[in-house]
Amino acid sequence: MRATLLYGKGDIRVEEVPDPKIQQPTDVVVRVTRSCVCGSDLWPYQSAPEVEGGRRIGHEFIGVVEEIGADVATLAKGDVVVAPFLVSDNTCDYCRAGLHTSCRNGGNWGARGVDGGQGEYVRAPHADGTLVKLPVGEDDELMPSLLTLSDVFSTGHHAARTARVEKGSTVIVIGDGAVGLSAVLAAKRLGAEQIVLLGRHQARTDLGREFGATDVVPERGEEAIAKAKELTDGDGAFHVLECVGTLPAYETALGVVRPGGAISRVGVPQYTEGPVGRVLFNRNVTLTGGVAPARAYIEELLPDVLSGAIQPGRVFDRTMPLTEIPEAYRAMNDREALKVLIKP
Amino acid sequence: MRATLLYGKGDIRVEEVPDPKIQQPTDVVVRVTRSCVCGSDLWPYQSAPEVEGGRRIGHEFIGVVEEIGADVATLAKGDVVVAPFLVSDNTCDYCRAGLHTSCRNGGNWGARGVDGGQGEYVRAPHADGTLVKLPVGEDDELMPSLLTLSDVFSTGHHAARTARVEKGSTVIVIGDGAVGLSAVLAAKRLGAEQIVLLGRHQARTDLGREFGATDVVPERGEEAIAKAKELTDGDGAFHVLECVGTLPAYETALGVVRPGGAISRVGVPQYTEGPVGRVLFNRNVTLTGGVAPARAYIEELLPDVLSGAIQPGRVFDRTMPLTEIPEAYRAMNDREALKVLIKP
Repeated sequence: MRATLLYGKGDIRVEEVPDPKIQQPTDVVVRVTRSCVCGSDLWPYQSAPEVEGGRRIGHEFIGVVEEIGADVATLAKGDVVVAPFLVSDNTCDYCRAGLHTSCRNGGNWGARGVDGGQGEYVRAPHADGTLVKLPVGEDDELMPSLLTLSDVFSTGHHAARTARVEKGSTVIVIGDGAVGLSAVLAAKRLGAEQIVLLGRHQARTDLGREFGATDVVPERGEEAIAKAKELTDGDGAFHVLECVGTLPAYETALGVVRPGGAISRVGVPQYTEGPVGRVLFNRNVTLTGGVAPARAYIEELLPDVLSGAIQPGRVFDRTMPLTEIPEAYRAMNDREALKVLIKP
Repeated sequence: MRATLLYGKGDIRVEEVPDPKIQQPTDVVVRVTRSCVCGSDLWPYQSAPEVEGGRRIGHEFIGVVEEIGADVATLAKGDVVVAPFLVSDNTCDYCRAGLHTSCRNGGNWGARGVDGGQGEYVRAPHADGTLVKLPVGEDDELMPSLLTLSDVFSTGHHAARTARVEKGSTVIVIGDGAVGLSAVLAAKRLGAEQIVLLGRHQARTDLGREFGATDVVPERGEEAIAKAKELTDGDGAFHVLECVGTLPAYETALGVVRPGGAISRVGVPQYTEGPVGRVLFNRNVTLTGGVAPARAYIEELLPDVLSGAIQPGRVFDRTMPLTEIPEAYRAMNDREALKVLIKP
């Protein structure tokens, strides 16, 4: 089969690799029908050291079950399934607590002998736990929105949930990437009344407004902080969703959060150390969020996607075949594309 | 009157100062009957630069109302009152949200013309909002426990509350100072089942056991982390109460918190920058806590103190007259005394 391999910084290729086979009785093999490129794929694309033979990549996909391990109980050949961006058994104590990202038997796609999502087939470990069956055909028109449950919309939802957004909330979202826009939509879905989106790419912030943003702040740094506070009674918001992952984005979050409020981070932090002393303490600011347990949220979010009440798939502004993966990465990295959907 | 003044590092004196008078119609003047030294008073005692004329200090006290401003509605001469460690109007939006530490009209004791608590008299601004009337006489035997509502026990309670300790919780408390021991008692009061106390002063950890600690870890650093995790199923606790304020204490908290758990800090951070990236993010650890809004908690905690159900005043292991304040600071700083109660 063909699959995507990252050989190092800027060097991404589609190559022939061995077809996956059932290895454990809890595995299934999925034929991938939709996949996509994640903002977090761009970090290694921008900076990964050279790897001999390359490494698999991609962690968001929908597909059709083609082969079944002997112990798989809930899935059948032909089922259309969505894969959350991490493997999980859905039975351990962490999974039962809704923290599938810390599953005792969990793991990553594209690592340790597990295929990446950006390929033609994937062996899915702990299939009963990991995959969620979708009640639609493999070419349903809802595919783009269903695919966002795999990562990007579930991640936006995690930001809103952990920051405790609720009916009537005032929310500030930092970042107009696909995660930031998903966070806007998630906050709106939970009943937020005012949603201030910090972003400076108008095509993206326009979609943010359609998703529910009531205000857009295109400024950056101190100017953005002043503007966002001005829009929120001068004190900032109780709910700040940091959807970028850089140190300046975190510092902006510190600047716009209201005393007693929460900053939820869902962009993978590209820094190790940062301001963490009295800047949080003196104002009782809570720092929360983290890697989104998408698996925990899919059942909750699915009905609103199926009914069309929300259309998170609008974050995809291009569709390309698997063979054009290098161009998909380039276009996203150069901010020409917001998020690229891949059809193998 | 006599009051305590800090002139600089290690230089603390009791001197004659002007008697306080009503300045605003919302003021009262309180004759202090009990006061004490806080662990946070030791930070400036250890490091403050020289101040000409000295500066007032002390923020925990109980006293009797002696003079009343014209607009004071809820207090009368002769009332026994406890003062939370910050001034607050108890009417602004932050106070109504229970965040009196961010009161729009709030402020510190011992600053900007307001007396410190370690003196004979204190002018209390926003007296209706700030002070809480106690239904006891000025020499009631419950005075030590009632005085802890001013700061130390309310602060321990804030740690337990913000870390969401509840019935059946497993909790790790870092620090065997008066705040750490108060956090143990607060966690026990909220129903915690296992409470692991990290501290190495046996007289203190013995009191911790009486307050509810089920395990004591006297080791430090990596050894303490290993031991605490061993005691908590290998993964640490969902509820970690950091009651010291140093960077190593925060790092220990990071080491013993369970994925999906919370670290609540109530010791004033003595650092600005620190680990704040993937160490929190990858495991969905929430960092919370902050300056305790003692005023918000007093009504809730008071009944259990009055009934004798809890005895937080046991953190006081010495009582001294105001004139011996320098010795009180020295003894606490040298860890000879856990917490010193002052009788003016």
